[in-house]
Amino acid sequence: MSVIPDLLAANGRYAERFDKEELPAAPRRRVAILTCMDARLVPSRFLGLEEGDAHVICNAGGRATDDALRSLIISYRLLGTREFLVIHHTDCGAMSVDNEELWERLRRETGADASGIDFLPFRDLEASVREDVAAIRDSPLIPLTIPVRGFVYEVETGRLREVG
Amino acid sequence: MSVIPDLLAANGRYAERFDKEELPAAPRRRVAILTCMDARLVPSRFLGLEEGDAHVICNAGGRATDDALRSLIISYRLLGTREFLVIHHTDCGAMSVDNEELWERLRRETGADASGIDFLPFRDLEASVREDVAAIRDSPLIPLTIPVRGFVYEVETGRLREVG
Repeated sequence: MSVIPDLLAANGRYAERFDKEELPAAPRRRVAILTCMDARLVPSRFLGLEEGDAHVICNAGGRATDDALRSLIISYRLLGTREFLVIHHTDCGAMSVDNEELWERLRRETGADASGIDFLPFRDLEASVREDVAAIRDSPLIPLTIPVRGFVYEVETGRLREVG
Repeated sequence: MSVIPDLLAANGRYAERFDKEELPAAPRRRVAILTCMDARLVPSRFLGLEEGDAHVICNAGGRATDDALRSLIISYRLLGTREFLVIHHTDCGAMSVDNEELWERLRRETGADASGIDFLPFRDLEASVREDVAAIRDSPLIPLTIPVRGFVYEVETGRLREVG
């Protein structure tokens, strides 16, 4: 049973009451958020964002990968964002990933060699936030004038806490 | 003027009425969506998603990069998603990016060499959707049993249209 018909029906209702046709591409609040793809995290809700407010970049873990850096560079150079947030979260799937186990499982289930892929697991949540904040700060392509702040989102409470 | 205090105040209000503490990590609707970080796109709104429903992966352009594939592999292998959507959009910033221009600008503004980074611009919106759907389908690490459907989101109307 596909859920796509339901999603498209919801989109039809959204489009019927749509009144955002005049929004510019540049985020109004000049902020970009890097966070996890986790289904429990809905950044627009837990940060109070409206359409047009902020760039939201999401991957497994909310990690500062080369692709996330590509996106952040486009965000600030071409679309004028001036602050970045990195948000990881409690009970993250990336905390239970083990590269070797996953490579072995993929080899067994698909026959393909995935050992070139680092799935970017982490064990220490605060350390992973600090590491990704540092990776962004250390990029020579992102100016030091851009504040980069790190947070943990608690899936148990809906609350953000800053990682100092 | 930082907008972060405003975002944290909004998060405080969200946490006060939070009632999602029991949600599992596996997306309830078993779907993963790959789309653009654009501020005008709020997937939870335009697809009618609640907390816990779906993985949402976002980068500049909604491109099927190695990092997006890493996230999709984790999504279906470890967290049970069974359908993927790729959603690009009209008026996308990636349509006005030019690699050579951006490399030159970054060299001028930061002194750093960015020429190793493909910013993944595209000119033809439907073609870019088809290309990224194909990149996911062609991955030996993603089974052919997972439907991958491509869409364009119209920022002028809020409406999705499928790319066949």
